[in-house]
Amino acid sequence: MSMIRYPGTYTDLYQLTMAQAYYLGGTRENAAVFDYLFRKNPFDGGYAVFAGLEDALSALEELRFEEREIGFLREQGFDARFLEYLRGFRFTCDVHAAREGEVVFATSPVLSVKGPIIEAQIAETLLLNILNFQTLVATKASRMRFAAGDRSLVDFGLRRAQGLGGYHASRAAVIGGFDATSNVRAGMDYGIPVSGTLAHSFIQSHDDELAAFRAFAEQRPQNCILLVDTYDTLRSGVPNAIATGREMEERGHRLAGIRLDSGDLAYLAKRARAMLDEAGLGYVRIVASSQLDEHAIKSLVEQAAPIDAFGVGTSLVTGRPDAALDGVYKLAFANRGPRIKITEETEKITLPQLKQVFRLLDGEGNFYGADAVALAGEKDVEAMHHPFDTLKSLSTRGFAKERISRPVMRGGARTQKPLSVREIAAFAKARLGQLEDEYKRFGRPYVYKVGISDRLKAVRDRLIARYRRA
Amino acid sequence: MSMIRYPGTYTDLYQLTMAQAYYLGGTRENAAVFDYLFRKNPFDGGYAVFAGLEDALSALEELRFEEREIGFLREQGFDARFLEYLRGFRFTCDVHAAREGEVVFATSPVLSVKGPIIEAQIAETLLLNILNFQTLVATKASRMRFAAGDRSLVDFGLRRAQGLGGYHASRAAVIGGFDATSNVRAGMDYGIPVSGTLAHSFIQSHDDELAAFRAFAEQRPQNCILLVDTYDTLRSGVPNAIATGREMEERGHRLAGIRLDSGDLAYLAKRARAMLDEAGLGYVRIVASSQLDEHAIKSLVEQAAPIDAFGVGTSLVTGRPDAALDGVYKLAFANRGPRIKITEETEKITLPQLKQVFRLLDGEGNFYGADAVALAGEKDVEAMHHPFDTLKSLSTRGFAKERISRPVMRGGARTQKPLSVREIAAFAKARLGQLEDEYKRFGRPYVYKVGISDRLKAVRDRLIARYRRA
Repeated sequence: MSMIRYPGTYTDLYQLTMAQAYYLGGTRENAAVFDYLFRKNPFDGGYAVFAGLEDALSALEELRFEEREIGFLREQGFDARFLEYLRGFRFTCDVHAAREGEVVFATSPVLSVKGPIIEAQIAETLLLNILNFQTLVATKASRMRFAAGDRSLVDFGLRRAQGLGGYHASRAAVIGGFDATSNVRAGMDYGIPVSGTLAHSFIQSHDDELAAFRAFAEQRPQNCILLVDTYDTLRSGVPNAIATGREMEERGHRLAGIRLDSGDLAYLAKRARAMLDEAGLGYVRIVASSQLDEHAIKSLVEQAAPIDAFGVGTSLVTGRPDAALDGVYKLAFANRGPRIKITEETEKITLPQLKQVFRLLDGEGNFYGADAVALAGEKDVEAMHHPFDTLKSLSTRGFAKERISRPVMRGGARTQKPLSVREIAAFAKARLGQLEDEYKRFGRPYVYKVGISDRLKAVRDRLIARYRRA
Repeated sequence: MSMIRYPGTYTDLYQLTMAQAYYLGGTRENAAVFDYLFRKNPFDGGYAVFAGLEDALSALEELRFEEREIGFLREQGFDARFLEYLRGFRFTCDVHAAREGEVVFATSPVLSVKGPIIEAQIAETLLLNILNFQTLVATKASRMRFAAGDRSLVDFGLRRAQGLGGYHASRAAVIGGFDATSNVRAGMDYGIPVSGTLAHSFIQSHDDELAAFRAFAEQRPQNCILLVDTYDTLRSGVPNAIATGREMEERGHRLAGIRLDSGDLAYLAKRARAMLDEAGLGYVRIVASSQLDEHAIKSLVEQAAPIDAFGVGTSLVTGRPDAALDGVYKLAFANRGPRIKITEETEKITLPQLKQVFRLLDGEGNFYGADAVALAGEKDVEAMHHPFDTLKSLSTRGFAKERISRPVMRGGARTQKPLSVREIAAFAKARLGQLEDEYKRFGRPYVYKVGISDRLKAVRDRLIARYRRA
């Protein structure tokens, strides 16, 4: 499926250094639980769209160390016994996770790995590298979808992507709500519609704009979209596109669209729409690109700019301005007991034990606005507490609840066959539909509550007290 | 060398749509020149460090379309004759470029591709994807190097990188001045020193911190760096590290360092240094990490924090806050004549023809602060003009000058064997040494001048006049 096979050494050196210490120290088989979570919703927003899971599961299933990698690690001074272990390495842990495309929230565990500590440790960098980035981009894309309504959204970002990051960015964009991508390989590997027609260079390579439009329309009468801003959008580009569109009609074809790529997009779209309509080309669509992000799209929609499709590049595929999701992978159980990390920054104190997440639903089946993190064994939760503010708690009795995480791997094997990007995108769309708009708005979104159950709170507070005494 | 082989379809669809139009229109062999340049120095800085060239040249040499890709393109409606062409595709253009690691400036052409327009067009996305990102990260790294002086800099970014972008980020970081990376695979493929010891999870997996330190030091007495902030840096971490260091001495070893990963790094470094020195462990180095960027490093250095090495993650590998370099690939010659793109935004008007860049040197062999862009055939330049402000020009007579670009590919084959990352990094270091600090400072850096020669200006102005008349 993917053009990528992650090598075993696609990791941070310290994962292997620690793994060797577990191996040689005889603790490698000790059962451990790690949680993947992020501490802040991206883009100062109210939620995130979880993405990257299917790629991550494939990467874990295929995780191997090749002979050349073993040789390199030997040069780095690793122990021969440990290298022999790596040579036969297979990932055999259990993984629980939210479904890919799920709407998730800061501080709540999104994925958990349970198994021998040495394997769970080795998986850390790979999981973080895949999940952090795709979740960032899927969330960014969902914000653009929120702004764009039902207008088309196309990913144009590959040229400005962070190198090969552009490959998975195109996948995540569709999960977040994009319709298509310019990225041919991502389209091929992930079954995403591909889109794109011509650039300024094609126009410039001809002696004049009309000659270029004619040459292109002749070669590509289907889905022909002409770029109209190479010289002067309203005085040259749009009139030449109209002339070309009329010639296409004579041959029984229809010009599909024009693309605006510079200048004031609202003004130009309105003028171009009027010119096209007046020429009887009301069916020609207007595509706009050029430094767009969710805020620019929102503004264009508010101005009633007659734009049918937005092409978005840099801000989408790089998840600008955040550029990274701060996802972490924290130890919750090891050495026969619950584990915690204490720090001066209270909100960075971790939650111990294997856990599960209950989501409260309102009467219409929409999200009520609260997730309760509980111990894995709890059948239901009666109340949830703010993790740190002892004054805040909420009775959860009588609410319909959903369990957000489910087993996705047992003993290192997937529990079900991989979902297509199309299926994941449909699920994300449905879940975003269950989230009220107040959580989606860009400025100061309503805060979705993530709390902890009585029993989880009790375990955590005992651990804090023990370490504070020590 | 690289773990990546770029497939031919790792491109924007419109490159192939245009290529098909050139092919079927009979213009595919027309000679063309494209320039790669960026319009704004990254990070509001005064320069950029050019990186990614060797990877880009390898990608061009290896550029092929595989049968599965041809099949996918057939489903997308591409013409059978064009697909037959793609099946035998080889990149045969000439490429001129600045050396990798060169200090380069906005608006000046950094790389040019000359050859059949169909091939030069197909190369666009690949070149932009590779060069934009590595140049962004190498420049970011160089700013951190400028702030850090001769302290060690280590890349810790893989977990927060934009997916696979992390692979090339580690390479570019070293070109910009980093010493090592945590990224094992990048270290292996690019000959970069790898570095890393342990994380919080290792400490937490033991019943107490001292037991964890002892277990780790026993398994790894060489280059052992202990992470001291899991519970309480000054009351637990540093005292336990000192105890471990003393036990190591008894066995004839030396604790290499401690790592601070949270809290006020300046304060903690000073206190930890005093505690280590008092314990006779003056040789133990202090490594600091946690949300660092060039500004944080500069501040720590100004506060005389006794930090020997900085571990930098997110801001380095994502090139935050920019997250992308706005590099473009513009047509300068085609269809037997110079080409230009006119736009309302004057500074986006392109420079026609195949060009070269002369760099002025001062009496000491340092950069004088001005590059002159000239036509390829010019032996020397007598004067350079501001590209748009007709009042500004500079006589360049009597200056020693260097030619910045050179042939790097002829007919699609490299003109010399690939350089190692170590060689490129050494060149970048030397070139950054020739650039005065005024261009490197973070706040309002001195503006390095990029001008155009008399003859280039004449060609460009003739073209502008022609299009404005039309």
